[in-house]
Amino acid sequence: MTRLDRLFSPRSIAVIGASADATKLTGRPIAYLEKHGYAGAIYPVNPRTETIGGRRCYPEVASLPEVPDVGLVLLGAERAVAAVEQLARAGAAAAVVLASGFGEAGEDGRRRQQALREAAGGMRLLGPNTIGLVNVDERIMLSASGAMELDGFVPGRVALVSQSGGILGALLSRGAARGIGFSKLVATGNEADLDVADMIDHLADDDATAVIALYIEGLRHVDRFRAVTMKAAARGKRLVVYKVGRSETGARSAVSHTGALAGSDRLYDALFRQLGIVRANAFSDLLDIPAALATGRRLGGARLAVVTTTGGAATLIADNAGLAGFALPDPDPATAEGLTALAIPDATLDRNPVDVTLAGLRPELFRRVLALLSASPGYDAIVTIVGSSALGQPDLVAKPLIAAIENTEKPILAYVSPEAPHIVAALNRAGVPAFASPEGCVAALAALRIAPPAACPERSAATLRAAGEPTVPPGSGPLNEADSKALFARFGIPAVAEMVAATPEDAAAAAQRLGGEPVVVKILSRSIAHKSELGGVAVGVAPAAVADCCRAMAARVSEWAAGALDGFLVQECVTDGIEMILGLSRDPQLGPAVLLGVGGVTAELLKDTTLRPLPLAPGDAAAMIAELKLAPLLHGYRGRPAADTAALVAAIEAFSVMVTSLGDRLQEAEINPLFVRPAGHGVAAADGLVVLAP
Amino acid sequence: MTRLDRLFSPRSIAVIGASADATKLTGRPIAYLEKHGYAGAIYPVNPRTETIGGRRCYPEVASLPEVPDVGLVLLGAERAVAAVEQLARAGAAAAVVLASGFGEAGEDGRRRQQALREAAGGMRLLGPNTIGLVNVDERIMLSASGAMELDGFVPGRVALVSQSGGILGALLSRGAARGIGFSKLVATGNEADLDVADMIDHLADDDATAVIALYIEGLRHVDRFRAVTMKAAARGKRLVVYKVGRSETGARSAVSHTGALAGSDRLYDALFRQLGIVRANAFSDLLDIPAALATGRRLGGARLAVVTTTGGAATLIADNAGLAGFALPDPDPATAEGLTALAIPDATLDRNPVDVTLAGLRPELFRRVLALLSASPGYDAIVTIVGSSALGQPDLVAKPLIAAIENTEKPILAYVSPEAPHIVAALNRAGVPAFASPEGCVAALAALRIAPPAACPERSAATLRAAGEPTVPPGSGPLNEADSKALFARFGIPAVAEMVAATPEDAAAAAQRLGGEPVVVKILSRSIAHKSELGGVAVGVAPAAVADCCRAMAARVSEWAAGALDGFLVQECVTDGIEMILGLSRDPQLGPAVLLGVGGVTAELLKDTTLRPLPLAPGDAAAMIAELKLAPLLHGYRGRPAADTAALVAAIEAFSVMVTSLGDRLQEAEINPLFVRPAGHGVAAADGLVVLAP
Repeated sequence: MTRLDRLFSPRSIAVIGASADATKLTGRPIAYLEKHGYAGAIYPVNPRTETIGGRRCYPEVASLPEVPDVGLVLLGAERAVAAVEQLARAGAAAAVVLASGFGEAGEDGRRRQQALREAAGGMRLLGPNTIGLVNVDERIMLSASGAMELDGFVPGRVALVSQSGGILGALLSRGAARGIGFSKLVATGNEADLDVADMIDHLADDDATAVIALYIEGLRHVDRFRAVTMKAAARGKRLVVYKVGRSETGARSAVSHTGALAGSDRLYDALFRQLGIVRANAFSDLLDIPAALATGRRLGGARLAVVTTTGGAATLIADNAGLAGFALPDPDPATAEGLTALAIPDATLDRNPVDVTLAGLRPELFRRVLALLSASPGYDAIVTIVGSSALGQPDLVAKPLIAAIENTEKPILAYVSPEAPHIVAALNRAGVPAFASPEGCVAALAALRIAPPAACPERSAATLRAAGEPTVPPGSGPLNEADSKALFARFGIPAVAEMVAATPEDAAAAAQRLGGEPVVVKILSRSIAHKSELGGVAVGVAPAAVADCCRAMAARVSEWAAGALDGFLVQECVTDGIEMILGLSRDPQLGPAVLLGVGGVTAELLKDTTLRPLPLAPGDAAAMIAELKLAPLLHGYRGRPAADTAALVAAIEAFSVMVTSLGDRLQEAEINPLFVRPAGHGVAAADGLVVLAP
Repeated sequence: MTRLDRLFSPRSIAVIGASADATKLTGRPIAYLEKHGYAGAIYPVNPRTETIGGRRCYPEVASLPEVPDVGLVLLGAERAVAAVEQLARAGAAAAVVLASGFGEAGEDGRRRQQALREAAGGMRLLGPNTIGLVNVDERIMLSASGAMELDGFVPGRVALVSQSGGILGALLSRGAARGIGFSKLVATGNEADLDVADMIDHLADDDATAVIALYIEGLRHVDRFRAVTMKAAARGKRLVVYKVGRSETGARSAVSHTGALAGSDRLYDALFRQLGIVRANAFSDLLDIPAALATGRRLGGARLAVVTTTGGAATLIADNAGLAGFALPDPDPATAEGLTALAIPDATLDRNPVDVTLAGLRPELFRRVLALLSASPGYDAIVTIVGSSALGQPDLVAKPLIAAIENTEKPILAYVSPEAPHIVAALNRAGVPAFASPEGCVAALAALRIAPPAACPERSAATLRAAGEPTVPPGSGPLNEADSKALFARFGIPAVAEMVAATPEDAAAAAQRLGGEPVVVKILSRSIAHKSELGGVAVGVAPAAVADCCRAMAARVSEWAAGALDGFLVQECVTDGIEMILGLSRDPQLGPAVLLGVGGVTAELLKDTTLRPLPLAPGDAAAMIAELKLAPLLHGYRGRPAADTAALVAAIEAFSVMVTSLGDRLQEAEINPLFVRPAGHGVAAADGLVVLAP
């Protein structure tokens, strides 16, 4: 058993600072352990008391009869450091520190957290600023939270990991009210040692857990998070995350709450997508989606049958499902015939929603309706509406539903229309995911369609430099445009046809050699980042006018930046390409990412860009293109030729290899515009910038 | 008292088809009336029974001792028609028909509904296919729905009007569980006579109602809906609507449910916006938003104070509030000083969220915190987080909150973090809007910022032709481009400088007269709608080349459409304008609307358009511009000159006057592109099409 295993399944627990007064916060943990039936040894530690609830109380950790697996530290911030040191010295596997007043509490707090961390040494540490940990199956409650007052935790297949203790408590009580069972619940708080990634790592090996639900304010170790989520995926566990920090206001609040580090939420979103993690958009989705995923069923397509006794609620579901891309095809002829043969008076059986009316609410009849719909090859899932008529007799709907799930592999979900938490809970407990909101029901359906992640390359120093160390230009700082594009070309991204010219006369000759058509003329300089704004770019210049054009540019540049000129660049005019932007984005928290966008003013205004953290997973490049709002431009919109998206995919991947290969040497890199030409004609970088670190 | 008043407040009720068997659906209504304490006379009508529950039962309507105000018809579809006829003959004010099997049930059903309608004559009719009506204050339940089993309805200021009976029942039970009180509840079902607009009309005059919450599948009488919502607004009532049919799937389901007529959901959205109706996006918002609006408080700005004892839930609110455009500024120095003087240990009082920790959960202390924050000029509203610590002692938070709302005019809302329906209900009942979801809390805050509607012109035959009958070109069918633009110009929308030419030579002369710069040359024809596709448009033609250009165009046109040519159009090239589209959109359900969009391929791809039903309300034109995603293009994006938005507003209004003035004569009208030039230089229609009806 690892130390982390022992934290989750301790054979003995020392409660440091336990009180005999059960009305005090410090009196609760032992009471909770007893109440829920913890079977191991409990050792209260408190020098001011002889016994607590009949147990002998020890004056200090050193005087305990055995080395405890876990020390639950109930002391305030100041005294917790010493207690952790004693536990570490005694050889405990882990300590749980509930107190706040550490990393989230200014400079003093950060220093104290550092001291706590050092005091722990090799011992694992949960917290500080946490409400602790619950192992439902083994009845272990390492917590002083009032949330433990709950009578009897429902065991289940969902593990809950939260960076906020308060949110964990809220989810626990909300889950219990809905009949959603949990395997483990843990709040990681300030994550001085153990963080969300450690918990996923542990839960990936936990047989009791099928789904890991995460509440995240910010990740501390992104590379490790990637690695452990892939491990969890490989073991068949699904991950669902609700992350705050989507707005500036929320990010700021999170920082002052647990000292979380803010990162770009868009980049987090891309990371979750890359790793096949389902993102919960509404807070309640963080329970609704796991409830559906925990059944282990998947949605093979988007065709729903909605079966109901009440029209309005079925319309609610149909409307929301339609918004999420689901279809409600009418029953196929064989299924419609089978339904009609049931002879339910006034029922609408040849359309979808299938309305069996109150007359259809006889258990045997309803069971047969469900059986016919589940057996129909025309449906991927069934949504059953539970109407007000079930309020008095929940079994009328519940029993046929529970019978139905045993006879099909398809997902069967229930939307409960009236206020009826008892029905929602009973269905969830019976393995029929049940929802009190139409939006939650449809969010769960959508999650059932998300494929588990493909294998995603690990991000490590090794993989980031996997392609070896290619020749990088020596020196540091910005490269000029020609050198930048030469670097891109070395990784497989071609530039437009172009020639470097030292003098205006050379430039004129180059224009002739490029074919005699009008050309693009630019100044070449490694110190001028915004050529256009200095009048250093001219488009459609006839070869005869190139020399004069160069002289005029040189004159303008010398006004602004004498001696900056490296020469001139003469390029072909590309007229058959769609302008894209391909660039490197570095997030202080999430590391390097590749950015893809559509060029031009309109797209810029719409911020029509998308991101992926590096390294890319298989399929990422194509998925990025599909995510752009203006993607149809590439596919031959309005009779134009389709663009060479295969070449664009290759360019995105080549760019990513470049970024990972050059590692920290590459400070900035952007191709703008990257022309994507008609299919078969590839891409061409028309401008670009690289900045190198020493 | 009108007949509708008597339906809502009947002094006597005949229950047609009542049963003595209380376990039957037809046995319920009288039991419900008695259970909830209805004070008027109840007359069971059933030829097969002598008495029901001690009351004398009458064989038919004609034998009743008095004319009942209302007849509640419990019979099936077939027999309901005769019962309604008897009630009408007897002189009843209104009938309520619960049965389904009418307009929603195919051709037979539609015929039956027509017969029902005719049988009612001048008597008002609620339904068919409804669960009926509840007047909470007067304890009147005209319903057989199991939803009436609820013990004691909480009276309140929210009226609920639903086109679906099932949804009404669901909202009733959900509202009751949250402590949201209702004044009236009514399901309009198939709306054979009384529709949603009639209910709004009645409720506008109801002193017990402050907010009208609507569940809508489709409006039958849009003009009347406009009129009655403006009446309700003038009486200070707020309207909140949840409308299905946002997706094709949902619209189809609604049609088969209550025979609702589908209309463009985008146009509905624009209509609601125009009328100042708050649209609920999530189903639960249809209760959450009215709960907040019913307090009568408004949000003057977007600055929130969030006060909490638990960090996580405060971060949830901060994050969602930030997404909705709210700010959480830190307390101003005086407020921070006042808070700090309270000396709450470990509390964070100089930041926002204001975290008073568990130590701050003493009623007197918490009351003072709330008083200081409400008094601060830096905040427009206060959101209080109720954490798990309040589970056992709800009064710790509730009492100070209830005290606080009495001492400020600002909205004070509560987000309840753990599962605690009893706390949510207690707060709502005490007048503190309380929410179980962060999204609902923020949706309510956002609704408190929406201004009540400005006076909106009524739509009637009169207003639609208010501008009188201007000279419209005689004849029917499409006008050619020049005639179309001449019509636009007559209403005040100028065209680009242009001249009509009969021959290629005239066209060349026209180009010279336009100034000698390159021009746009087009064929002129009333029968060719897509000039460009036939090669009938040339841009940037030098005057010397115009004649040849015209001859080539004429040749191409004669291949496709011999004799279609009316001549040529020679126009100035506009290079300093932003391309917009201004057009007429006619919805079979919602009538004429004006459409505004940005021109060009990218905008078309993004469907960057917006709509307003006609006639426009004051401010609509400017609001339409602001709704476009690409609106910043007009405001001088990236150093370009700002466009003449004032002229664009005038053009939108002129276009709308044209549409309302010409009425049904104008079948189609579109200006595309309409160039918006730099500020001070106005707009210019560069192309346009008008199609006239005979």
